[in-house]
Amino acid sequence: MSTDWTTPYYACIFTNQRTDSGADIYEMMAAEMVALAASQPGFLGVESVRDAGGLGTTVSYWSSLEALHGWGQQAAHKKVQEMGRAEFYSWFQLRIAEVSETRQFGLAALADQITPPDAAAD
Amino acid sequence: MSTDWTTPYYACIFTNQRTDSGADIYEMMAAEMVALAASQPGFLGVESVRDAGGLGTTVSYWSSLEALHGWGQQAAHKKVQEMGRAEFYSWFQLRIAEVSETRQFGLAALADQITPPDAAAD
Repeated sequence: MSTDWTTPYYACIFTNQRTDSGADIYEMMAAEMVALAASQPGFLGVESVRDAGGLGTTVSYWSSLEALHGWGQQAAHKKVQEMGRAEFYSWFQLRIAEVSETRQFGLAALADQITPPDAAAD
Repeated sequence: MSTDWTTPYYACIFTNQRTDSGADIYEMMAAEMVALAASQPGFLGVESVRDAGGLGTTVSYWSSLEALHGWGQQAAHKKVQEMGRAEFYSWFQLRIAEVSETRQFGLAALADQITPPDAAAD
């Protein structure tokens, strides 16, 4: 799976701080949301990092702004967003951006990294 | 320091995998680069996360595409980029994007988070 998608494409940059609450449930829900996102029309890929202090950045990539907004409105995702505000995040910042330019180094390893879980056998 | 900058502004999304090489030197250089970036014209802020496996995402924000590209060409930064390819990263993916839309939750804590080091006393 290439990560060198044709520009323009769209990024949802979600930077967030986890609370100490519900680690097991959160991990399960986060994995479910990645799998669900990967099944949505226009999904390209996702990169997600969290440090030991609970600071995280998840960037998902979409082929169109419509696809990105569609994911934001997806019913199961909306429920999880409510739980995020109520319990899992002490703060978050979400930004929507149009990617116009890319550069890469050592790409083969990255392609493995961001292959969505249910496409890993492709 | 607000993080709710007037759109449009510009993001450099730098996702990377650290090698096992030179942790002390890398940490020192990374801190220097953040301070140097923060002193450049058009710099808005930076968010940086790295997990225990060495996967990292650093997103820097700029008021214009010119300012973002100017940082990419800054002389000391160019030297560090060469060291990054030669030694510190096994791969990276860099994307330049125009931020058109933002949303936030619990913003006060985030403002502390992304205040650049040399402005922390403000």
